[in-house]
Amino acid sequence: MRVRKRRGVEDYIAKNPQFVVENPIDFRGCWAEHFDNDHPICIDVGCGKGQFITNMAKLNPNINYIGIDLQLSVLSHVLDKILEENLTNVQLLHVDGRNLLEYFSEGEVSIIYLNFSDPWPKSRHEKRRLTYDSFLKTYEKLLIPEGEIHFKTDNRGLFEYSLTSFSRYGMFLKQVWLDLHKSDFKENVLTEYEEKFSNLGQIIYRVEAKFKKI
Amino acid sequence: MRVRKRRGVEDYIAKNPQFVVENPIDFRGCWAEHFDNDHPICIDVGCGKGQFITNMAKLNPNINYIGIDLQLSVLSHVLDKILEENLTNVQLLHVDGRNLLEYFSEGEVSIIYLNFSDPWPKSRHEKRRLTYDSFLKTYEKLLIPEGEIHFKTDNRGLFEYSLTSFSRYGMFLKQVWLDLHKSDFKENVLTEYEEKFSNLGQIIYRVEAKFKKI
Repeated sequence: MRVRKRRGVEDYIAKNPQFVVENPIDFRGCWAEHFDNDHPICIDVGCGKGQFITNMAKLNPNINYIGIDLQLSVLSHVLDKILEENLTNVQLLHVDGRNLLEYFSEGEVSIIYLNFSDPWPKSRHEKRRLTYDSFLKTYEKLLIPEGEIHFKTDNRGLFEYSLTSFSRYGMFLKQVWLDLHKSDFKENVLTEYEEKFSNLGQIIYRVEAKFKKI
Repeated sequence: MRVRKRRGVEDYIAKNPQFVVENPIDFRGCWAEHFDNDHPICIDVGCGKGQFITNMAKLNPNINYIGIDLQLSVLSHVLDKILEENLTNVQLLHVDGRNLLEYFSEGEVSIIYLNFSDPWPKSRHEKRRLTYDSFLKTYEKLLIPEGEIHFKTDNRGLFEYSLTSFSRYGMFLKQVWLDLHKSDFKENVLTEYEEKFSNLGQIIYRVEAKFKKI
């Protein structure tokens, strides 16, 4: 996601270490302790400006959300929303979503959200797609046995790829939506990107997938 | 598929027993012998008027095709095409596609085509959908180990259902097309229904699925 540069972002972030975790490696395996409760932990890989994660956090006060993004300027927008809404169940990590095992231990996460991830359409970039085999291996480790991946995209090619990638890995498709906004799925929480491109007529795809059949 | 009644259909069919098999139960396990070759056998469950199966047969003379439909009047249209094109690799069965194990033995079939099957949209009719668990159990028996199901539909609900049904059964999605006619799949052979509804702007979905990962 491209965003305009914002002045003083580093200072703003540094002044709010209670929301933007400074040394996330230190919390590996200790997130429940850090949140000071035993609520499920859900992570949003590539959370962008945070409309999705902050609205989810408002709707589900008994779930802990961790937003991950490599761009400090987008995280500053999530921080705006957290402060405005006074949300206590959201934490932000300014790290690379490719190294999740550095920040979470096995079975620490209940749901992994992948929203409108980079499609990397060229075949030679397949390994960079967040639904590529090696990422699934990581997700399987992080998730509790009954954990799930909830994936949304407007990119047809990436969605087709992801369905076969999940299947090839031996995952189970719990439910698939091939036109989410025309479906009866009422609980959908929009991302900024989704709102914009759905209004332009793009079809939004969604899948809930899991590693165990249970 | 609704088709106009055609006069003298029974006579027409009866006069061509070399194409419309009279006692298909007798050929269970003996289709290779019947075709007098060891070419792969592919079946089209609900073949309708046969544009798909006859064009496939023309394109692939080294594959045997068996079209199955419960409506005699639609089979008469397939028979027209077989006679016009002088096709020797197509046989037709006027039987109920729900009882496939009566007509084929285990491992006798290479590909099962399901094209634009009845969506049975009501939940209480789930068991009638040709991609319901009990049908998959039958297909698994009929198919050779590396056999495949090739399924096309314009019905979003049925396609969503079928992907999860395949997955729940433990099948593998080899490839998925979420807008077949905008894809680079060049080998597509149209059914009558597909031609009509695609021209009206309907999205056509397609999947190739299999029971073994191989």
